Amino acid sequence: MPIISRRGKDAYTSPIRHLGPYADAAKAKGKHVYHLNIGNPDINTPTLALEAVRNAAEKIVPYSPSKGFTSYRKKLVGYYKKFGADLSYEDIIITNGASEGILFSMFSCLDAGDEVIIPEPFYAIYNAFCYVSGVKIVTITSSIENGYALPSAKEFEACITPRTKAIFICNPNNPTGCVYTKEELAALGEIVKKNDLFFFVDEVYREFSYEDKFYSVLNFKDLEDHVVVIDSVSKRFSACGARVGALVSKNPNILENVNKYAEFRLSPPHFGQVLAEATLDVDESYINEVKLEYVKRRDYIYSRLAKMDDVICKKPNGAFYILAKIPIDDSVKFCKWLLTDFEYKKSTVMLAPASGFYATPGKGKQEVRLAYVLGVETIEKAMDCLEVALKEYPGRTPTEKVVTNGVLKH
Amino acid sequence: MPIISRRGKDAYTSPIRHLGPYADAAKAKGKHVYHLNIGNPDINTPTLALEAVRNAAEKIVPYSPSKGFTSYRKKLVGYYKKFGADLSYEDIIITNGASEGILFSMFSCLDAGDEVIIPEPFYAIYNAFCYVSGVKIVTITSSIENGYALPSAKEFEACITPRTKAIFICNPNNPTGCVYTKEELAALGEIVKKNDLFFFVDEVYREFSYEDKFYSVLNFKDLEDHVVVIDSVSKRFSACGARVGALVSKNPNILENVNKYAEFRLSPPHFGQVLAEATLDVDESYINEVKLEYVKRRDYIYSRLAKMDDVICKKPNGAFYILAKIPIDDSVKFCKWLLTDFEYKKSTVMLAPASGFYATPGKGKQEVRLAYVLGVETIEKAMDCLEVALKEYPGRTPTEKVVTNGVLKH
Repeated sequence: MPIISRRGKDAYTSPIRHLGPYADAAKAKGKHVYHLNIGNPDINTPTLALEAVRNAAEKIVPYSPSKGFTSYRKKLVGYYKKFGADLSYEDIIITNGASEGILFSMFSCLDAGDEVIIPEPFYAIYNAFCYVSGVKIVTITSSIENGYALPSAKEFEACITPRTKAIFICNPNNPTGCVYTKEELAALGEIVKKNDLFFFVDEVYREFSYEDKFYSVLNFKDLEDHVVVIDSVSKRFSACGARVGALVSKNPNILENVNKYAEFRLSPPHFGQVLAEATLDVDESYINEVKLEYVKRRDYIYSRLAKMDDVICKKPNGAFYILAKIPIDDSVKFCKWLLTDFEYKKSTVMLAPASGFYATPGKGKQEVRLAYVLGVETIEKAMDCLEVALKEYPGRTPTEKVVTNGVLKH
Repeated sequence: MPIISRRGKDAYTSPIRHLGPYADAAKAKGKHVYHLNIGNPDINTPTLALEAVRNAAEKIVPYSPSKGFTSYRKKLVGYYKKFGADLSYEDIIITNGASEGILFSMFSCLDAGDEVIIPEPFYAIYNAFCYVSGVKIVTITSSIENGYALPSAKEFEACITPRTKAIFICNPNNPTGCVYTKEELAALGEIVKKNDLFFFVDEVYREFSYEDKFYSVLNFKDLEDHVVVIDSVSKRFSACGARVGALVSKNPNILENVNKYAEFRLSPPHFGQVLAEATLDVDESYINEVKLEYVKRRDYIYSRLAKMDDVICKKPNGAFYILAKIPIDDSVKFCKWLLTDFEYKKSTVMLAPASGFYATPGKGKQEVRLAYVLGVETIEKAMDCLEVALKEYPGRTPTEKVVTNGVLKH
């Protein structure tokens, strides 16, 4: 038998995905599983956008241009303008979801062996794209005790080595739900400029900032050569399966490289682009209603978690995730146990173990991520499960108590 | 300004794509351009498949499973059975077009520095995927003089080094139009087994074999551990923009690795899969009519080329391409000249310079690829242009005459 590649054998696999078969087995036994483990929202995709696909009159489904439909790219200029960004359509390249945007950023800007600084916890799949491109992740730990605030500029600076080529953040943040301020971003921008780094910002949750106005790094005129924004319609229009994202940059060298990679894979998907282009005609009321719905869910899930014994969490102000520190020995073990050994009223809840969001070994063992992508009534039942589970779990271990500045419940 | 990556800067770019701006400029001047340069067919996508997308009743467009819709994978088992392959749906992973299938094959089976043997001329974008994955292409030249027949097993064997990990062929072949026989494939299979290699076969043109019955490598029971078939709905259902392909293998180690890469990018496109699944219900008469149409076009384009002075070509029996050796100094120069300096009846023709299909420097300078993806009446006008152009072209250089076994016109 021929020997498969070492890189394939050693490739990153998500600890969250490992739980999938256990969830399937639980369902096969008739157990209902509340999926708070993945950001696949239950919100309806805008009817107008679905209609655009249903009304598509084409008789042939041809390749689109590698950079995406020109009409869509032109229309996106207006969308970003609403966030203060002054773009030309040539600054925008359509990608197969944000996933491809991240991969293209890595390949276009960084060489194997280069380092990228990412504050942890971070979206686990960044590991995969850095692995594929041979880029080394250097991490700074933010912690639940201060609400996962962005580490200080000083802490970023301390991580810089001759191989550092980029800083990479997600704003609003998955998995922490933090929304970064203009000032915090500007402070990072100074480091980026001073050290001639790239500044990758994953803004796929850009519409989901609940208390503060979201500030896009595309507004920093002095960072135009450095900034690469990764975006997607997946979350904001509940269209994860459309596979349509965008990579935005004002740096022509980056765009030239990204375009090469875009040409390799010929084109982004046709119908996804038809849908995505139509989302730009969707009335603002859609997103406002969706935001209100998420606020309701967030407030509810937070209030339930806050009442549970020995659970530490802060109310997040963006995206649709909440991280909670819970009294368990090991989040991977606990999340598996929920599926294999626990049930309450013939149901259980599926969560994401937070250890997958940390690069530092051992971190996140008492943390889980909950995606509030289901309605309040469903979350209620899921929280009932969790509450009972935490009492029954044999590996219960008190959470470390930490002195804090008042944002935490103990 | 931050310095972009060396790998991005040095990345492969297709010599065919370079011509795009010249075509745009020609059109802007009011010149009509006949596109015989790219395999983007003018054949209608089956109505039944388009209807499936139009009738899609979903209110949300969620991620599909990373491996693709299970229902689609199960249905594909029946499709491949028609070609003699005995598969389980678990042997099939849905990809973003064949492009992603090739990339996943490289990453999953080969390490950087490994060698893959590919007979040339070959589909230019293989270069790109080998570049991205750091895989070295070792090539054996097949030539127009014997109709680009598959080089002998002996020639393949002579290329094997300790780093050789795979043989990669396209059957039916793009750009040559050759269809390989069971015996030729079996001979390669022996080498594959003897040397414990992977056997990558791009079968995206599997439906387009005109004189002989197409034989899939999936039929070789003794090669199950070695074979990876790359497939796509793009060409056979004229749905290049659907971005739906498949990677097929019976080797569990390969599938396990491919699945990791599939998980990184979350899922293939939703609507593309809706369309692709529906194509499996399309009546056989669709593909039979399409084949008849291509045969008509092939016979016509061949008859025209064969009549042109000093043009060498063989009638291909598969795919929808024909390579011709024409009396010019340099195919890149000539194809550019057609767009920038030539016109006949306010029109010109766009072709693909064959040098892009060779890895050996200097090869293909007198060859061009013509994609017969347009109707006979349009091809007629395009051939009128080419006939006049070859007379007017200032770099006219006689084609080398070669003694042959009678398949050539001189």
